[in-house]
Amino acid sequence: MKDKTLLMIPGPTPVPENVLLEMAKSPVPHRSSEFSAIFDEVNNDLKMIFQTRNDVFIFAASGTGAMDAALSNLVNPGDKVLSLVIGNFGERWAKIAESHGAIAERLTVPNGETINPEVLKKRLDEDVNKEIKIVTLTQSETSTGAVNDVKTLCKIIKEHGALSVVDGVTSVGAIDIKTDEWGIDVLVSGSQKGFMIPPGLAFLAASEKAFEVHKQCKYPGFYFNWSSYKKSLAQHTTPYTPAVNLVVALHAALKMIKEEGLENVLARHRENAMLLRNSLRQMGLKLFVEDDSKASFAVTSVFPPDGVSVPSIRKVLKDDFDIIVANGQNDLKDKIFRIGTLGFVSERDILTVVAALQAAVKKLKLQS
Amino acid sequence: MKDKTLLMIPGPTPVPENVLLEMAKSPVPHRSSEFSAIFDEVNNDLKMIFQTRNDVFIFAASGTGAMDAALSNLVNPGDKVLSLVIGNFGERWAKIAESHGAIAERLTVPNGETINPEVLKKRLDEDVNKEIKIVTLTQSETSTGAVNDVKTLCKIIKEHGALSVVDGVTSVGAIDIKTDEWGIDVLVSGSQKGFMIPPGLAFLAASEKAFEVHKQCKYPGFYFNWSSYKKSLAQHTTPYTPAVNLVVALHAALKMIKEEGLENVLARHRENAMLLRNSLRQMGLKLFVEDDSKASFAVTSVFPPDGVSVPSIRKVLKDDFDIIVANGQNDLKDKIFRIGTLGFVSERDILTVVAALQAAVKKLKLQS
Repeated sequence: MKDKTLLMIPGPTPVPENVLLEMAKSPVPHRSSEFSAIFDEVNNDLKMIFQTRNDVFIFAASGTGAMDAALSNLVNPGDKVLSLVIGNFGERWAKIAESHGAIAERLTVPNGETINPEVLKKRLDEDVNKEIKIVTLTQSETSTGAVNDVKTLCKIIKEHGALSVVDGVTSVGAIDIKTDEWGIDVLVSGSQKGFMIPPGLAFLAASEKAFEVHKQCKYPGFYFNWSSYKKSLAQHTTPYTPAVNLVVALHAALKMIKEEGLENVLARHRENAMLLRNSLRQMGLKLFVEDDSKASFAVTSVFPPDGVSVPSIRKVLKDDFDIIVANGQNDLKDKIFRIGTLGFVSERDILTVVAALQAAVKKLKLQS
Repeated sequence: MKDKTLLMIPGPTPVPENVLLEMAKSPVPHRSSEFSAIFDEVNNDLKMIFQTRNDVFIFAASGTGAMDAALSNLVNPGDKVLSLVIGNFGERWAKIAESHGAIAERLTVPNGETINPEVLKKRLDEDVNKEIKIVTLTQSETSTGAVNDVKTLCKIIKEHGALSVVDGVTSVGAIDIKTDEWGIDVLVSGSQKGFMIPPGLAFLAASEKAFEVHKQCKYPGFYFNWSSYKKSLAQHTTPYTPAVNLVVALHAALKMIKEEGLENVLARHRENAMLLRNSLRQMGLKLFVEDDSKASFAVTSVFPPDGVSVPSIRKVLKDDFDIIVANGQNDLKDKIFRIGTLGFVSERDILTVVAALQAAVKKLKLQS
């Protein structure tokens, strides 16, 4: 059966029908009052979701583009960056820093764990000469399903004086993140996650303090240069041709989020994730991140039951039920599978994936 | 009347209905054999349109992203870049080079003119120490409607030994450009132009010689790093989440181009542009680029008739006939208007815009 796919991966996430239909409209000319009106409303809504009074820039790019845009605008060769690594996407920050000539020091924990604030505090306290200019971190680590305590970590970073640069790619719109209140300097996210639209847009919010550091950046590059986006935002547009169909789709998706209410959207993610976690436990499955307080509401990683392989579970879910779940990444490939509960996901979808998983496990155990 | 807009601007260009409908499909998971099959076919088709045997990278970005990706992968601070500037987009190359720490020397001609190959040859002959590492140029200058003789210019650049980096954003798929045969080292383009899909994808082809220079680039950045795209292409995917809906739409658009045949597509652009140019002349209008051999087939710039302003012409075309044409940019704002004949544009569209323009001019002259 075709066209009945249920995406339960941590992005791209399911897209509501009315948002998909917006994608199919003829492109609006991007230098028009019609586009600017949509663009202004989108920008206001993004501020609401990012919980910031600062501008949120919209790039035609994937989430990694916004991550690159975060550091390329801040780093000069030789700068020291401390990267808090709790998985692949935490490591990506370090690699991006190095690609711009920075010296990246990694504070790494095993997969599935999160950064202990005391350990960060100790490391930053040692940095008496304030050599560390930037600390990068991940809220929801997509590769493991662990979630950092961004509020506490950013408080410690602020006290040290470094800039906090946070990956919210799979968390913004799914897990509470109070950009201004928590003193986050740079926060990035991507469209195919909590924003319920297809991939191709990325977002970045920067504090005034981050902007001051940006001004000292010698070679910020061109396409992602924050100053160009800031200048264009004041003129109700983007510096370069925006991905207009995605912006129009975002406009529709943000309207849905506003109607549901951000608080309710976040509560739905929490409830769906907890329903999934408790259902998996009841099935006797072992969660990769056992502590609920350290678990992401965007993606849940789970070990397969004894005697059943990850590829076989994924195959039965796909072939029999048209449900797509993700494999583990790198070292975790075939060790865990990951279920996304991000974006346009309802309680019914959780019941569905749990029922299908029960049927798949039963089938595979009978076969073994 | 709504939803009857005819876009006659140099991008975004009109999108065929079947391509728009592809945009509205639920996102295909990007790490799937289904997506890889589409992606492989798209890559093969792009090579055909770029007329190259080398890989063509697909970025989630606008055309300027690909321009940035061209130089960020080649330039080290202090490198010397010669930028051939025949308009705003030629100047953009120089600014991008500078944003990465290069020293950009501009060889500039007045708006509407093109680079004289003899002048370029003289400048490069003077560079006996081979300090100029890269020469940037534009095929179709969107801001003026002039077109450079890329074949001759790239031959001269090749003889000198520098890399040629060419902006084909509004020309690939509209004006003949033989990447390999003409010895072009880097060629970039964008989706919302000759490719007949909405904005959000950008393309880049690089020669082996360019790749050798890339390997010496100290800080190539992360998101646009050619090496990552090359490695992923061999694995039938992109290094970061692709804009899947745009890729699927591109797949449909490239199928249309293959069915029409690239030769026929290029002939259609030439014939439509010449029909427009001759019709405008018959109306007594003055073309900004008078010499047909130096005129772009993608966009035609024209002076308004005496006593009629550019804004008034654009307003009547929009209000009475729902036809969007572009104003001039920067210094040329309100001095010329620009008619795009790029992408999904038929002979009927040319007749339509000419008829509407005649009616608009008549109306405005009666009013004045």
